Amino acid sequence: MRIAVIGLGLIGGSLLRALGAAGHDVVGFDADPATRELARAAGFEVGGSVRETVAGSVVAALAVPLPILPEVVADLDGYDGLVTDVTSVKGPVRDLLAGRRFVGGHPMAGKETSGFAAAEAGLFGGCAWVLCLEPDGTDLDDWLLLAGLFTRMGARVVPVTAAEHDTAVAQISHVPHLFAAVLAEQLLSNPLAGTLAAGSFRDGTRVAATRPELTAAMCGGNGRAVQRELHRLIGELRQLEAVLEGPEPIGAMTGYLRRPSEARRAWPATPGRPETIPADIPDLLHLGRSGGWVTEVKTGRVVVKRPETDRFLP
Amino acid sequence: MRIAVIGLGLIGGSLLRALGAAGHDVVGFDADPATRELARAAGFEVGGSVRETVAGSVVAALAVPLPILPEVVADLDGYDGLVTDVTSVKGPVRDLLAGRRFVGGHPMAGKETSGFAAAEAGLFGGCAWVLCLEPDGTDLDDWLLLAGLFTRMGARVVPVTAAEHDTAVAQISHVPHLFAAVLAEQLLSNPLAGTLAAGSFRDGTRVAATRPELTAAMCGGNGRAVQRELHRLIGELRQLEAVLEGPEPIGAMTGYLRRPSEARRAWPATPGRPETIPADIPDLLHLGRSGGWVTEVKTGRVVVKRPETDRFLP
Repeated sequence: MRIAVIGLGLIGGSLLRALGAAGHDVVGFDADPATRELARAAGFEVGGSVRETVAGSVVAALAVPLPILPEVVADLDGYDGLVTDVTSVKGPVRDLLAGRRFVGGHPMAGKETSGFAAAEAGLFGGCAWVLCLEPDGTDLDDWLLLAGLFTRMGARVVPVTAAEHDTAVAQISHVPHLFAAVLAEQLLSNPLAGTLAAGSFRDGTRVAATRPELTAAMCGGNGRAVQRELHRLIGELRQLEAVLEGPEPIGAMTGYLRRPSEARRAWPATPGRPETIPADIPDLLHLGRSGGWVTEVKTGRVVVKRPETDRFLP
Repeated sequence: MRIAVIGLGLIGGSLLRALGAAGHDVVGFDADPATRELARAAGFEVGGSVRETVAGSVVAALAVPLPILPEVVADLDGYDGLVTDVTSVKGPVRDLLAGRRFVGGHPMAGKETSGFAAAEAGLFGGCAWVLCLEPDGTDLDDWLLLAGLFTRMGARVVPVTAAEHDTAVAQISHVPHLFAAVLAEQLLSNPLAGTLAAGSFRDGTRVAATRPELTAAMCGGNGRAVQRELHRLIGELRQLEAVLEGPEPIGAMTGYLRRPSEARRAWPATPGRPETIPADIPDLLHLGRSGGWVTEVKTGRVVVKRPETDRFLP
């Protein structure tokens, strides 16, 4: 199968390598001539433009940063194959690609280094790869084609809507970055805090050291979900504040903290045994919502795993 | 110098060992007979009661948990030596010991294991040891006596008021535990979040796994400071919420995040060169407030270090 990868940084370069290693006829393109040269030197076919690179391919995977995506999409005029992407926000990309054969994706993979030189075929082994499935817009065969490609690389493919993805990443990544920032800001007004700070501060603020441009682009790009989840968590913190002002703060707080403490100790969940379920949109979405993922695509069916226990669910 | 240590868990046991290794005439006591037996077997003199143990000692160090402290203090009737403690909240202990020769302490030391068996003489090497200094209540000679003992164990002695201590630990430990709990609680309502969560969630929620009784006792014991600092940080988060709703969220958020990001990257600060300053209460309190600590006590003077740079201070 001929597959085009646009953008050859860490994720795009790793995708090119992984798809090539799986025996596909891959072609890549990057706006940076030096990157194109690196990919050519590594033995890959490299196109001269987006338009030329995607022509004749079955799948075009867009692995460029979100701000660049609109101009790359404009260059797809005339291309009628299947398009996917790897950006970390899915609602805005779904809207940008409306009217096209498109399935949005987000591999939860990365490492400290970036660029094609750091790319490796094994990057996606074991990683969760969100692949968006909209009840009213996604072609199931397109979704299964990509799910098959990515599971064969060892990824755990997670079927959810773009909105569900954006809410979950706001909860587990974007809002935690904002929490870390307000905790770290305390160093500015109280030098004593920095002298006494130890493990709980070190871990709770680690991601505050991220470049502010990156955190702002990530949160701002998912602004509606981040604002909603931040608002909800502020409400939780206000409940804790009320508990501290109440008559029996230690007992009430122990009760409040018990379930989060159990939930954190049970995370990450152990996967249960593989099951085979029908490859239809309602079953797949139910799987994703319950924390499960696809490990293999078969004709009309998929092999899946779910977290072993749901004892902490309401 | 004869020194009594009451409570021979990890901190008290380590203190007994460190003071013994420094050549002091030490005697210990623990309410648990098995712990007393362990200390005796390790070659230490062990008393039969609090009253008997402290009799004749120059310093009595109380290394018992906060809830036990009132009954131990009641057993000090008739003892007129210097009393110190090691609990993690200082305002309530200052009030409990009002009218006595008392200097509150808090060594920021610990490890995963607990009990006398885990105690070691080297536990305090390099650790910050808060030693409270109240402009209107602490006898400076008493403070310097203890600062000398603890700096000779390798501790960095931090002179601050009880109120300053309680605010700082609320900022860098207690409120971060509450932030971690509300982030971890999201696992309960959204199983998808647990499947997609990675590094920023793992680190931001690590301390949510602490036993809820411990976190509640810690936060509740420092309730006023925790409530105040939590309230302030909720205000910061609401500012971020407003930024996300504003007209230029990415630019505004980049501006907001820049200073916390720089501050976190500059933490922990590199200590500057040693300085010698007068051993008086105003100079010592200024040192503590600016993030510095005492490394050695001399006659009428102390050797101190401060964080090398204050370029992030307002």
